[in-house]
Amino acid sequence: MFDTAELDRKVSKHDYAEKAPPLRQELLETQIQLTKEPFPVIVLFGGVDGAGKSETINLLHEWLDPRWLIARAYGEPTEEAAQRPAFWRYWRDLPPKGRIGFFLSAWYSDPILNRVQNATTEAEFDESLDQILTFEKALADDGALVVKFWMHLGREAQHRRLKQLEDDPLTQWRVKEKDWENWERYDDFADAAERAISKTSRGPSPWHIVEGADERYRTLSVAGTLLERIRRHRKVLEAKAIGEAEALSAPVDVDRVPELSYNPTPEVTILSQLDMSLAIPKPEYNERLEKLQGRLDQLSREARDRGVSTVCVFEGWDAAGKGGAIRRIIPGLDARLSQVIPIQKPSSEENKYHYLWRFWRHIPLAGRVTIFDRSWYGRVLVERVEGFATEVEWMRAYAEINDFEDQLIHNQTVLCKFWMNITKEEQEKRFERRQSLAHKQWKLTEEDWRNREKWDAYEAAVNEMVERSSTHRARWTLVEANDKRYARIKVLETICSGLEDALENVRD
Amino acid sequence: MFDTAELDRKVSKHDYAEKAPPLRQELLETQIQLTKEPFPVIVLFGGVDGAGKSETINLLHEWLDPRWLIARAYGEPTEEAAQRPAFWRYWRDLPPKGRIGFFLSAWYSDPILNRVQNATTEAEFDESLDQILTFEKALADDGALVVKFWMHLGREAQHRRLKQLEDDPLTQWRVKEKDWENWERYDDFADAAERAISKTSRGPSPWHIVEGADERYRTLSVAGTLLERIRRHRKVLEAKAIGEAEALSAPVDVDRVPELSYNPTPEVTILSQLDMSLAIPKPEYNERLEKLQGRLDQLSREARDRGVSTVCVFEGWDAAGKGGAIRRIIPGLDARLSQVIPIQKPSSEENKYHYLWRFWRHIPLAGRVTIFDRSWYGRVLVERVEGFATEVEWMRAYAEINDFEDQLIHNQTVLCKFWMNITKEEQEKRFERRQSLAHKQWKLTEEDWRNREKWDAYEAAVNEMVERSSTHRARWTLVEANDKRYARIKVLETICSGLEDALENVRD
Repeated sequence: MFDTAELDRKVSKHDYAEKAPPLRQELLETQIQLTKEPFPVIVLFGGVDGAGKSETINLLHEWLDPRWLIARAYGEPTEEAAQRPAFWRYWRDLPPKGRIGFFLSAWYSDPILNRVQNATTEAEFDESLDQILTFEKALADDGALVVKFWMHLGREAQHRRLKQLEDDPLTQWRVKEKDWENWERYDDFADAAERAISKTSRGPSPWHIVEGADERYRTLSVAGTLLERIRRHRKVLEAKAIGEAEALSAPVDVDRVPELSYNPTPEVTILSQLDMSLAIPKPEYNERLEKLQGRLDQLSREARDRGVSTVCVFEGWDAAGKGGAIRRIIPGLDARLSQVIPIQKPSSEENKYHYLWRFWRHIPLAGRVTIFDRSWYGRVLVERVEGFATEVEWMRAYAEINDFEDQLIHNQTVLCKFWMNITKEEQEKRFERRQSLAHKQWKLTEEDWRNREKWDAYEAAVNEMVERSSTHRARWTLVEANDKRYARIKVLETICSGLEDALENVRD
Repeated sequence: MFDTAELDRKVSKHDYAEKAPPLRQELLETQIQLTKEPFPVIVLFGGVDGAGKSETINLLHEWLDPRWLIARAYGEPTEEAAQRPAFWRYWRDLPPKGRIGFFLSAWYSDPILNRVQNATTEAEFDESLDQILTFEKALADDGALVVKFWMHLGREAQHRRLKQLEDDPLTQWRVKEKDWENWERYDDFADAAERAISKTSRGPSPWHIVEGADERYRTLSVAGTLLERIRRHRKVLEAKAIGEAEALSAPVDVDRVPELSYNPTPEVTILSQLDMSLAIPKPEYNERLEKLQGRLDQLSREARDRGVSTVCVFEGWDAAGKGGAIRRIIPGLDARLSQVIPIQKPSSEENKYHYLWRFWRHIPLAGRVTIFDRSWYGRVLVERVEGFATEVEWMRAYAEINDFEDQLIHNQTVLCKFWMNITKEEQEKRFERRQSLAHKQWKLTEEDWRNREKWDAYEAAVNEMVERSSTHRARWTLVEANDKRYARIKVLETICSGLEDALENVRD
């Protein structure tokens, strides 16, 4: 989930000087216009200490007209608030229609902190998240726009940031002992945050995860996203008012994947950061492959005995080598215990059901293995990009998919999700090779060439997919697959170590 | 919540013979038409043993064309199902588009049973209900119609029913020892069921609570409601298809409060069952009043010391004596600790916020008392009947209100909700008296006479309000108020015993 916010995104001074002033102007104009409009804007900031939450709020406070702005930060409840239900102080501070309210360290803080400190069980944590959802839903149902920013720093980046603040005599005071204690628990914090974000990123109030290391980047990102969201919301309300609500969920323009967040550096994606030159020489490959298949054989037998199931998901560019990788897994598995499910366009029978139905059908028995060659992620990839699913449908799908996978994981299933990545150049080479080889020609269709034209749209969709569905327990593995040997070894190693971790937990 | 399903509703043989055949015919025609329509109908039956769940399913099975019908009942999961996530077997059995599926003892059974047996904590129970909501939401979002019936019998009625089955040699076999064990835990079961129903009666899949004692009544009620829901759903989908979704949430026809459920005996409501002749003679009244005010004084002081808050809500017919009852409470309260909040039409400032905002503001500090003269229930009474709130808005309000009150109760608040009930005749007398008394004329407006014309619509709204918002922990007290003295004593007694129970819990 946070992988996409650790890409070291930066905006140069020059770019900032060019983009910030007009953005500021537009935001201010939008705010003035908002004063006459029938909805409030509730902007929530959560995230890692040092990722620039307060700085961003302060800056936006300068940019905007403070008369129509409310900013609130929450610490320990006052005596007044402590005597009332927890949400009382947030209700009290809600902005009226026509105004913007910034909320810092608000309703997510205690639930996450309590979970990190083990003061609550997972069920209690989930329950508190559901209460938040209920609260946000009540506001959104009433017409409010709820915009949530999660300001992120990676573990090391946070360390650097705290050091930097500490070393500067002017900012020294801002770093407390508690900050370092919190840093020590970075991983627990990230876990709880991930769960909070994935459980509450639904319906009308998705989270925007913002990489917080670079001030210029995060400023543009937050300001641009806020502007974008207000505009969209206005459009939705207008459409509703004239009875065209459904027009908004019509298939999207195929050349443009709508993005919820404003992205100042669209060229930087989780895929653009991969080292696509990674390769393994043939002799080494042969040796490692054999060893890994043996290891998988052993692990999958133990998994069978202990009732640990495995579900593998393969997604990737056309010709990225999904099939080849799957064929290298099979020898390590007992054929009676495993099956490969190729996913194509839904049949007319399958179309009579919810899109997840055909995947539920193939969930393995305890101890078995199911490999999906393409999967439920089609909803947020091909169906999104090609406009087969409406925006409302694919936006909803992230939450539906997270719920689905959550149920698998709770049922003792090792879930390995692979995105097989090749460069555009490598794909072209492979397409041409397929065309020239008679026995491979069938694999190449007109559609493959068409998909290729939408590369950027797919890349944006993949980036968002990883952002919204890669969690600690259901992590995406991005496989550098220009070299087939490297890719196959990485896939096998990932499955083996996933199984090992799960078996270790079960053995305890 | 179940009060409205313990009214001893019955349909005579004659009425049944008249109403059942056309209903059956229409239902069958609707089912045939459904086979060509793009949505499945998922009908869930839950409820008390002996309340006629299986009988109703069997009967509908006869009425309908079995080729387009799926019926499933669930017991212990098979080995196949036990090895997969709990929802797997329900996903597997979902009806495709165009078909109806009946589900008996399905996804609500285990969560409720586990809670009754204390195998789960309240947080875990709530979490399992949220998983159900997520499941039902995914289906509904995909276009499915989800209809949920809760077949109810009161504690005594269930006892009679089990006895009756046991005494008949033909049905003896149906009563197991376990059934009697369950009956012993009737109250725990009702508590858990109430929570399940109130937490999952939202959005597009509200529960219909059906009184199960009379076979003819429950058959008409279930069949009629199913027919009604399918028709509504069809209308919604058609409207959506032509982009008129919002037309459906336009203000309703003031002469007809839309009801979700088909009601074979609309003349029987929770109000029609009250004994409106109850009265207390003056001398007895004076004595009891003084005693109760003294008791309240004492209890409210202890409540202050122990931080137990009190919220009283007064709703009722115009001239039912809300104000008079409130004035009899005040002497029992320390003025510094209590306040009365009269609720009128929202001000222009209040209108800038969510409708619950103005009530949140007045939540008392720990140990204090707030009395609302009219309340948030305006949303589902006057706003519903007068069309100030759209159907979507007031339907949503039940869940919002339940959530709101849940937060009060979790925060150690005694919540007393009073419906002050008078007969239409008594109201007329009081109106006329007001008109004739110069110093009371101001209390009577044109609006009062207008409201009176919508008596039946209000009565239906009150009945549904009690059904959907009276729970074990936030019970409605219906006050027979034709006799003012009786009403005032009942109000005071209810508050005192509510405080006593709460203080007893705190003292432990």
